[in-house]
Amino acid sequence: MNGKTAAILGVGPGLGSAVARRFAGEGFSVALMARREESVSGIRQEIEEGGGKARPIPTDATDPASVAAAFGEVRNSLGDPEVFVYNAGAFQMGGILDVSPEKFDECFKANCAGAFYAAQQVLPAMVEAGRGTVLLTGATAALRGSARFSALAVGKFGLRALAQSMAREFGPQGVHVAHVVIDGQIDTPRVREMSPGREDHTMLSPDAIAETYWLLHEQDPTAWTLEMDLRPAVEGF
Amino acid sequence: MNGKTAAILGVGPGLGSAVARRFAGEGFSVALMARREESVSGIRQEIEEGGGKARPIPTDATDPASVAAAFGEVRNSLGDPEVFVYNAGAFQMGGILDVSPEKFDECFKANCAGAFYAAQQVLPAMVEAGRGTVLLTGATAALRGSARFSALAVGKFGLRALAQSMAREFGPQGVHVAHVVIDGQIDTPRVREMSPGREDHTMLSPDAIAETYWLLHEQDPTAWTLEMDLRPAVEGF
Amino acid sequence: MNGKTAAILGVGPGLGSAVARRFAGEGFSVALMARREESVSGIRQEIEEGGGKARPIPTDATDPASVAAAFGEVRNSLGDPEVFVYNAGAFQMGGILDVSPEKFDECFKANCAGAFYAAQQVLPAMVEAGRGTVLLTGATAALRGSARFSALAVGKFGLRALAQSMAREFGPQGVHVAHVVIDGQIDTPRVREMSPGREDHTMLSPDAIAETYWLLHEQDPTAWTLEMDLRPAVEGF
Amino acid sequence: MNGKTAAILGVGPGLGSAVARRFAGEGFSVALMARREESVSGIRQEIEEGGGKARPIPTDATDPASVAAAFGEVRNSLGDPEVFVYNAGAFQMGGILDVSPEKFDECFKANCAGAFYAAQQVLPAMVEAGRGTVLLTGATAALRGSARFSALAVGKFGLRALAQSMAREFGPQGVHVAHVVIDGQIDTPRVREMSPGREDHTMLSPDAIAETYWLLHEQDPTAWTLEMDLRPAVEGF
Repeated sequence: MNGKTAAILGVGPGLGSAVARRFAGEGFSVALMARREESVSGIRQEIEEGGGKARPIPTDATDPASVAAAFGEVRNSLGDPEVFVYNAGAFQMGGILDVSPEKFDECFKANCAGAFYAAQQVLPAMVEAGRGTVLLTGATAALRGSARFSALAVGKFGLRALAQSMAREFGPQGVHVAHVVIDGQIDTPRVREMSPGREDHTMLSPDAIAETYWLLHEQDPTAWTLEMDLRPAVEGF
Repeated sequence: MNGKTAAILGVGPGLGSAVARRFAGEGFSVALMARREESVSGIRQEIEEGGGKARPIPTDATDPASVAAAFGEVRNSLGDPEVFVYNAGAFQMGGILDVSPEKFDECFKANCAGAFYAAQQVLPAMVEAGRGTVLLTGATAALRGSARFSALAVGKFGLRALAQSMAREFGPQGVHVAHVVIDGQIDTPRVREMSPGREDHTMLSPDAIAETYWLLHEQDPTAWTLEMDLRPAVEGF
Repeated sequence: MNGKTAAILGVGPGLGSAVARRFAGEGFSVALMARREESVSGIRQEIEEGGGKARPIPTDATDPASVAAAFGEVRNSLGDPEVFVYNAGAFQMGGILDVSPEKFDECFKANCAGAFYAAQQVLPAMVEAGRGTVLLTGATAALRGSARFSALAVGKFGLRALAQSMAREFGPQGVHVAHVVIDGQIDTPRVREMSPGREDHTMLSPDAIAETYWLLHEQDPTAWTLEMDLRPAVEGF
Repeated sequence: MNGKTAAILGVGPGLGSAVARRFAGEGFSVALMARREESVSGIRQEIEEGGGKARPIPTDATDPASVAAAFGEVRNSLGDPEVFVYNAGAFQMGGILDVSPEKFDECFKANCAGAFYAAQQVLPAMVEAGRGTVLLTGATAALRGSARFSALAVGKFGLRALAQSMAREFGPQGVHVAHVVIDGQIDTPRVREMSPGREDHTMLSPDAIAETYWLLHEQDPTAWTLEMDLRPAVEGF
């Protein structure tokens, strides 16, 4: 272990786990933050069996109090995170008249507000240290509001705005903020189940995305990236 | 009166009043929707003295129940709106660590979610009629997340996403959705007070903006605008 | 006649003619600038029969010397243009390997460089007068480089860049520069011929676009538009 | 040597040399393409002294015939490039009225058309091999047309359009096209000379940019980047 901590909010069997694996592989202790502990049990076991340190932290990204409490626990158990990854999200596809106000609000909180609540928890120590990395998982819907995608696009546009505001405020203080636009389907058990027989190369490999997250963390401070997109070579766009 | 109704949510002495004036001048009955009735009393009186019809409708844009009740009142008193203008907003300037989660949420609701709640109220009748206009007031912060502007930019980016989703879903059904990026300060009593001596031509005239809103409503359906910007000739950008 | 002149570079039977008609209808003398005089003979006759003034000016937009000579003729015959519309363009659809370097260059010159050459001719008098309007016809390809569209997109992106540079330099000097993104097919004789039976409402009406060009010219200087899009209500995008 | 070739068009003492160094360090033979051979003599010597293979290829990026001849020489001497980097450019700062048509055209050719000419030379072999990487050096001016920057912005916008068109056409054929927006000043001898005493961390390190170019080449095909920005942590934007 290198004594450093990475906190990942929004860990499931896909990208969140891959990011945890990548940073654990570099000696980071990882805080596995998710609403339900079973979402993180697989990756936790994998990391621990590999000799790494991983701690499940139950967190409801949509609730500021839960987020604050969760990061209190992260700090107490693993120390201040040098890296924070926001990977939470929620989406109900549907026309403007089909999504309830409650669902609309909930999606926004999961897709955007949770990143704000969490940023408030991790930034003070990063600023004090003069270093830190905040990585935000974006989507195609961050750049385009498609029909029937408002419940996703509103929050993902908002997250992009937050990334820009945060980068402009904290970059000069040593904190690297980056927003990664994932343009395509990530290869997860759930996507596999929904599209049996779908070919590997048509889906984003979670490990390939995680590699990019790691490289963003490693970028030289004279050449930081605020935004980049990732998509399969064969993806139409 | 032409029997038509325009509902304007977010009416104060600046742009909201100018839009109300412009549409009333074309014979529209106008619903003046604002949190506090005193915000709309001036323009109400002006319109009524001019022989027009204006009805104050107390509305809290951040509360779905209030929005639903308010549009119930609009429909009962003035009929289904053919035009809906969302002009509400809220902003606290400040760094990411300076804005409370509550304030962040409230700003998002005023800047974006309220437009979603309201759209659900006005769209069904527009779709049934096969015509209608929804105009959303955007800002510089819809395109750029500046430092210390996250509480505004997140909602304004979100509103832009909503505009795109809505336009793509409802345009083919006859509803014109447009998002207007106001890039500069609007000439309001409050701005005047804050910057005494500021020259007229450096601020956007509310009546000039309202003229654009009117012209957007009048556009031929073969050449509809989804987005346009407006700024003073002398504005740096 | 109001003594004012509008110069339109790129006049054919579609948008160019409609813009000429619209400005002539407001009392402008119009310079009808096109490579071949037969492109403008119809609209010329129409304007003159209506009592307006229209002058064909043979111009090759891709050749700086031709553009300079043409504007010399405009100035001598009609006076300094208060309005300039760039509507020229060229396109060969094809993959990167299918378009010759010569064709690529030619398309760029027609889609972008010609506007630069022409701007140099009209801006000095506009700056001296402290007023003027420059309108640039953009396209979907101004915002998106699709496969097989490089020969169009490169120039249309470039034209958009030029619009921004020009607006930022000359706006404060009283010259209104606007870039209009036409997103769809314009209803022209040629498009009709290629798609017999195509329904009217699926194509942009040239007169509706020309109306927008006129309104841009008429905008109040405290609320100028740099960019707006236009598309049929039924257009997918 | 790994038998692979990287061709870099636009090699000077800054970024071009750093990219050459990086790829040579991975065993690539590098074609050092520049108008004047003295621009590449330093990096050539450095690579050869390190045991690598580097070949100067005089190339005028603005001339299709020169570009074709140069790539003929690359193919004959080093074989088909698996990697092509376009790093040429030209700029004259100045208002619209200050830049001659000739200079405007020349800047466009250097900033954009040269990449098109070169792409036609390298893509056929890449398509046949089913693999290849094309990296295009962008700039702040690719996203924003500032006053007095039209001669740069037009070409850089165009290059971005070209990147998009090329990526959409050739990505599914195995060729990775990426456009890197360099937002800031690169640390070159010339910039140092112009701003003596400027601090290191305020300029982009050429080696840091080159590292990013290398990593783009190495990306997994399920997670390719089309566009990313790079800027110093302290850069205002």
